[in-house]
Amino acid sequence: MSRSVYKKALKLHRQYKGKLSVESLVKIKSKDDLSLVYTPGVAEPSRVIAKDPQESFNLTMRGRTVAVISNGTAVLGLGDIGPEAALPVMEGKAQLLKDFAGVDAVPLVIKTKKPEEIIKFVKEVAPTFAGINLEDIAAPVCFQVEEALQDIGIPVFHDDQHGTAIVVAAALSNAAKVAGKKMSDLKVVISGAGAAGIAITRLLLGLNCLAGECFLASKDYRVGNLILLDSKGIIHKDRHNLNIYKQALLGFINKENRVGGLADALVGADVFIGVSKPKLVTPSMIATMAEKPIVFAMANPEPEILPNEAEKAGAFIVGSGRSDYPNQINNVLAFPAVFKAVIDGRLKKIDLKMKIRAAKALAEIIKPTRRAILPDPFYPDLAEIISKRVLEK
Amino acid sequence: MSRSVYKKALKLHRQYKGKLSVESLVKIKSKDDLSLVYTPGVAEPSRVIAKDPQESFNLTMRGRTVAVISNGTAVLGLGDIGPEAALPVMEGKAQLLKDFAGVDAVPLVIKTKKPEEIIKFVKEVAPTFAGINLEDIAAPVCFQVEEALQDIGIPVFHDDQHGTAIVVAAALSNAAKVAGKKMSDLKVVISGAGAAGIAITRLLLGLNCLAGECFLASKDYRVGNLILLDSKGIIHKDRHNLNIYKQALLGFINKENRVGGLADALVGADVFIGVSKPKLVTPSMIATMAEKPIVFAMANPEPEILPNEAEKAGAFIVGSGRSDYPNQINNVLAFPAVFKAVIDGRLKKIDLKMKIRAAKALAEIIKPTRRAILPDPFYPDLAEIISKRVLEK
Repeated sequence: MSRSVYKKALKLHRQYKGKLSVESLVKIKSKDDLSLVYTPGVAEPSRVIAKDPQESFNLTMRGRTVAVISNGTAVLGLGDIGPEAALPVMEGKAQLLKDFAGVDAVPLVIKTKKPEEIIKFVKEVAPTFAGINLEDIAAPVCFQVEEALQDIGIPVFHDDQHGTAIVVAAALSNAAKVAGKKMSDLKVVISGAGAAGIAITRLLLGLNCLAGECFLASKDYRVGNLILLDSKGIIHKDRHNLNIYKQALLGFINKENRVGGLADALVGADVFIGVSKPKLVTPSMIATMAEKPIVFAMANPEPEILPNEAEKAGAFIVGSGRSDYPNQINNVLAFPAVFKAVIDGRLKKIDLKMKIRAAKALAEIIKPTRRAILPDPFYPDLAEIISKRVLEK
Repeated sequence: MSRSVYKKALKLHRQYKGKLSVESLVKIKSKDDLSLVYTPGVAEPSRVIAKDPQESFNLTMRGRTVAVISNGTAVLGLGDIGPEAALPVMEGKAQLLKDFAGVDAVPLVIKTKKPEEIIKFVKEVAPTFAGINLEDIAAPVCFQVEEALQDIGIPVFHDDQHGTAIVVAAALSNAAKVAGKKMSDLKVVISGAGAAGIAITRLLLGLNCLAGECFLASKDYRVGNLILLDSKGIIHKDRHNLNIYKQALLGFINKENRVGGLADALVGADVFIGVSKPKLVTPSMIATMAEKPIVFAMANPEPEILPNEAEKAGAFIVGSGRSDYPNQINNVLAFPAVFKAVIDGRLKKIDLKMKIRAAKALAEIIKPTRRAILPDPFYPDLAEIISKRVLEK
């Protein structure tokens, strides 16, 4: 089936040359129209904005439009495939912003891997947009870039971090409810300490972090214990060469100071959250987990374990990042709503409390069941409901 | 009347929040649609492009889309009003590309005045687009920037230079025909030695220039004599502090080595071309010009002399940059067609010969008269006709 999805997708992309078009809201049919949208008329909005740059939000597309920016260094599960190859994903992302939340979005793929250059690029292009969605930029560069851009006057939101964390937090709280477990008792194992893994860890432990330091800032989603693994295995106090973002978590994760690999981590765990690589999890590993295990295998496009295999192996609730299985735990449930809030509220940044309100709003929309822990992306007014909650004081 | 244009334009911009929207070509109505335009399907076009980045022109919006990039340092006649205030103009420009030539275009206004940073920005964002329209970047930075970007794999075209030069060359050749004068006999005075003035000078003298050097490369539009003025008056051999782009013209312009100001330059001139500032030309100056004078007063939004005043003062043919007077000499007659050629021909650069073919195609579309030296921007298939000619071998 997957093969046919790929074939169809390729055909569709070739047929339309991608997925987005830029359209004029006011059609030019006469010289009079031309004198309003272009010279001489256009001079007037320009003059008004020159006096007060904030008027750009009222008089230009800036008031409705965000950018989706990527350098293509961590695209889906495909890795560092370059800016050109990242464009189909960014176009898709922009399309979801429009179709699910009415937010106009422009994809920009850029050719640079240096954090200082990405930071500079975003600062330079900021006057065009109401917000910036960073996307598929590899860790740890993504952390440095996002942190450096928190005070540029418009929100800069790295969706692979926060979009994922919001949706996982909502999914996990609902899954725990269905399984009859308390969030604060959960033993959670996260495979993958990139953008998503670090951000999920931070949110599930209520941490606010800035570079080399984290502090407890919220109790909303605090789980009992959390073991984080990177490509070298369990992260623990005696590991060497951890980047500053992993180091900053050491005081909060892996309370028993377990060592080893994924199989070691999963023994007795209530929850597996995979934001890593295809096929890392075997049915026998799932068999060692606690009662009613929750498995979110979210590697893209191929999950850590196929949902049906995980269920067969005893998983009580199974989610994945994909739209072609039940329990899709996909950012599409959050980021369109977040950017709708950015537009509607003319936000200057997106803080931890807003992310938590987004997660709660998402979790509370439906009464969860094993096969439907979260609403469908097509749930009516989903973005409207969540964005309103984000903007609540 | 102008005041009412400004008022209406402001209202329209406020009503729609600008003029452009980003739309999805394929509507997402089901999970199946989602799995094609987004994960997992989107992985396939990404994989194909990762193998061959040129496939990005076939599988993404890149194959249809250009960027309109400005830093807002030389916007219309308004000067250095900043990136935010430039956005209405860039949105208008993008709209004209779509409405007149079917080219999708994204406006990007950027916050930097340093040429190296503009160059870097354009290089970084190039993988997103099929071409770059630089716009309203002040001279002489615009020359340095454009020259540095000629070999980045996609065309970078500074419209204030070349779009203007193409349309002026076409307009002048037709005006000369109507006035019964030969191009090679014309004494031309150009007021304004910024982007447009320098580029018109180069094209009307058939010069190819690179930084400090120009050489004769074409005889197609060679006029008899050309006097160029900047804000300090006539450019001549004894002037000090000329930038390298003005210096490079010294061997080709102002054959009589005239000195002084605009009034001095215009005595006996056949043609006035204004790309400078409002109200520089008086009726009495026009009275000193040669028989059947041709006056193109193109400062935006207010011309060097109002068209009706110029006519009263004896001008035989009068043009301006504005859409609310006859003989609009506006870039809209050229740049949409040029970028249509960029898209249709997947061009890597736009050379002098292409610009000359564009000017000739534009001039030959209609049989010119005093009040209609050029076709209307609404002339059927205008962009189609010109772009085909640009692509001729």
